[in-house]
Amino acid sequence: MEVSFTVSYSMAGPEAEARQMAESICVEQTIEFPADLVWTESIRRDIIAVITRFEGRSDGRFEATIRFNAAIAGTELTQLLNVLFGNASILPGVRVETFSLPEALLAHYPGPNYGRQGIRGLFKAARRPLLATALKPMGLSCQELAQLAGKFARGGIDIIKDDHGLADQGFSPFAQRVERCARAIGDANVETGGMSRYFPNVTGPADKVLERARFARDAGAGGVLFAPGLGGFDTMRLLAAEVPELPIMAHPAFLGSFVVSPHHGMSHAALFGHLHRLAGADIVVFPNAGGRFSFGREDCQSLARATGDPLGHIAPILPAPAGGMTVARVPEMVAFYGPDVVLLIGGDLHRQSPDLVASCAAFRAAATSL
Amino acid sequence: MEVSFTVSYSMAGPEAEARQMAESICVEQTIEFPADLVWTESIRRDIIAVITRFEGRSDGRFEATIRFNAAIAGTELTQLLNVLFGNASILPGVRVETFSLPEALLAHYPGPNYGRQGIRGLFKAARRPLLATALKPMGLSCQELAQLAGKFARGGIDIIKDDHGLADQGFSPFAQRVERCARAIGDANVETGGMSRYFPNVTGPADKVLERARFARDAGAGGVLFAPGLGGFDTMRLLAAEVPELPIMAHPAFLGSFVVSPHHGMSHAALFGHLHRLAGADIVVFPNAGGRFSFGREDCQSLARATGDPLGHIAPILPAPAGGMTVARVPEMVAFYGPDVVLLIGGDLHRQSPDLVASCAAFRAAATSL
Repeated sequence: MEVSFTVSYSMAGPEAEARQMAESICVEQTIEFPADLVWTESIRRDIIAVITRFEGRSDGRFEATIRFNAAIAGTELTQLLNVLFGNASILPGVRVETFSLPEALLAHYPGPNYGRQGIRGLFKAARRPLLATALKPMGLSCQELAQLAGKFARGGIDIIKDDHGLADQGFSPFAQRVERCARAIGDANVETGGMSRYFPNVTGPADKVLERARFARDAGAGGVLFAPGLGGFDTMRLLAAEVPELPIMAHPAFLGSFVVSPHHGMSHAALFGHLHRLAGADIVVFPNAGGRFSFGREDCQSLARATGDPLGHIAPILPAPAGGMTVARVPEMVAFYGPDVVLLIGGDLHRQSPDLVASCAAFRAAATSL
Repeated sequence: MEVSFTVSYSMAGPEAEARQMAESICVEQTIEFPADLVWTESIRRDIIAVITRFEGRSDGRFEATIRFNAAIAGTELTQLLNVLFGNASILPGVRVETFSLPEALLAHYPGPNYGRQGIRGLFKAARRPLLATALKPMGLSCQELAQLAGKFARGGIDIIKDDHGLADQGFSPFAQRVERCARAIGDANVETGGMSRYFPNVTGPADKVLERARFARDAGAGGVLFAPGLGGFDTMRLLAAEVPELPIMAHPAFLGSFVVSPHHGMSHAALFGHLHRLAGADIVVFPNAGGRFSFGREDCQSLARATGDPLGHIAPILPAPAGGMTVARVPEMVAFYGPDVVLLIGGDLHRQSPDLVASCAAFRAAATSL
């Protein structure tokens, strides 16, 4: 193998079974064929993956680092995902812990158009945490959503995103919603001198994602929300390539099964950190520990670290812990994540005060006074 | 709610927690907003989902049937997936067991272009099990793959598919592979009077899937292989809509995490049966019980049933049990699945005999003599 990359998988014990599983992965993720029947020596030598490290872990599981020939991943994200965890996802007890790609392979993936520094530049916010909220509840009309959007902007929220459940339903059709909300936020910015941006949800049919993003761009949106679990990781990559004017906030809908168990799937860092960066997200939303969901503190910590650690030419991105967060938790969240974070608070802004602008201002004060 | 649909979720006990989880799902999958803060009575009444059944199961889990307003799912598959299991995928211990859509909602999804009867018609095979195999191992040249394809066709295999790891890598670039393999199978058909069909893998970049499928069609392919876990369920739907000349065989790569646990994710029937039918697959490949993977007999049975049970206007499709299957297991597989099955055998055909044509003929004899 001239150029190779490595993936570390953990697997259930006992040791002999774990080692056998690691050996299976070497074959399953490459030739998917009985190794003893391969009649071409070069395939046996160059295509079948190789275990380069195998050891027990303190949690009783085993971890194998496996080296793959970069040629089998080709130049496409779908095939890279397939090598990482295609058939291995169906093997019992296997989890992708980390993967490490050489620059020759990373070169096929531009990554985020903005990343941490780019996003900060958009808001002229060099150091402070960024603030985000969501337009909801679903069922409101476009006019009502636009009214909310205007209040959020006047309250100083940086990123005002659609709830990820707002698609193109009858109660708030995409085009009308985007036009009205973008206009409301634009008007508020003029009024206050602010720089709030609207991120409409462009998750949708495979043949409409780019069209919606371009429509949003032309209507004055300042970014997009996209759920790669629903719409595809490669569609997110394409979105970044084709509509680079709009930064991408990724939403975790439909991805929970990959991380729900420490005994299977992918690690939070690999999925929400490295994979999202490869696929062009600038900001990654995930459920913070202590909210309504299943992520623990260590999961969130490793995830956040993976949004910023070295990944070749691929820029760091911003973690956006969410899911039932409150203004009261802002100091704790900033202490935990540091300032390189997008604080996403939804319902609690409505709970804080009947005056939504005042709630947002209090949120902003809490986040920027730290 | 004028038109509604239902989803049955199972959840972990104890009962009080399970009930609370069911109530959470009603909110999480719809307004995703504190219900007590909703200021619009019609949203509370029409948008928040409702538990219509809740009961304990013999396995200690609980099952809730939840009724959703069809309006929130709109007309798009991505949003339907989001309502089914978007944020719920991140809730601990929640599994989609079944879903039931009214014709008003099903009407947005044409489903498979061929289905069981259509596929049988292509092969003039009214009753017998269909035979499939895969071109592998990865690393062979296009010429070598085409030689294999020709032998499989001369041996009487109905569906000769690419290994799902064959994308557009240097060792067998897509266009050249498709042209050569299609030609080799076409030549063999002329020679034998057979009707073998080549299903190349068109899983790839979001902006190239349709292009590859059209290229394959024009080069004489007889179907396509597509992995919706890698490329997106809605991309598969689009493929069926835009290139209806080619039936679709779906591959389960990257989908294992949804079904690996009975305590989370989606049921085999919901994911590989109903969802694949909605999204336009004609044949669904899955790992058979007793092979290299984690599916049990009951999982496979419920999956196979869901490929054929009533689903409005949406046609039944064919299950294709795979993953280390052997010619020796053919009688048992046909007894288990019945004749409406695509028997997919890869490596074992190479093991049977050095004469691959003879191995295929033996496979065909085993499957059609039953």
